[in-house]
Amino acid sequence: MVLMRQEIGDVLRDFRLQKGRTLRQVAGEASVALGYLSEVERGQKEASSEILAAVADALDTPLSIIMGEVSERLAVVEGLSMPLPGRVPDTVPAELMSGYAAELVS
Amino acid sequence: MVLMRQEIGDVLRDFRLQKGRTLRQVAGEASVALGYLSEVERGQKEASSEILAAVADALDTPLSIIMGEVSERLAVVEGLSMPLPGRVPDTVPAELMSGYAAELVS
Repeated sequence: MVLMRQEIGDVLRDFRLQKGRTLRQVAGEASVALGYLSEVERGQKEASSEILAAVADALDTPLSIIMGEVSERLAVVEGLSMPLPGRVPDTVPAELMSGYAAELVS
Repeated sequence: MVLMRQEIGDVLRDFRLQKGRTLRQVAGEASVALGYLSEVERGQKEASSEILAAVADALDTPLSIIMGEVSERLAVVEGLSMPLPGRVPDTVPAELMSGYAAELVS
């Protein structure tokens, strides 16, 4: 069974890392407990719609973008699409991405 | 604040109506209480990931497709995209759609 909270957690963590933010920073800005956000990121807790909205806001990322990414990853898990070739690995932080991208085009 | 459960509820109901299925049928197949599914569709209850997966399964619709539609509607609500011109209204049941589509191309 494909579980959405797993994908949501992965995507939230990846966006956070890409922005170079810590759990503590995002939890603080979103006014959610750090332990709770950590559990959400690990797919262990369902995030309510209110908390999702607050976390998206703290990440300066529209919820539609987050859920679009969740949908794409679900499609991969469901075998409906393949990951893009040369796709940046999910957990690469922003500071490493420019180097990675440069490698791809070189 | 944009609430995801509202969009999820709308999308689940629209997919159900497009397939000409009743709440009772889908709730039965997904093994969830009818009243609960009804509340989910009205955006009054958060659906757990397990229930979302079961309802998607009962609707013969991959979760990625459902969440892709949720993402698109969130983008409209967030002002990031406009609904497609000539888009089929959200709650038109399947039996009416062929006529509607015919009207659009005539």
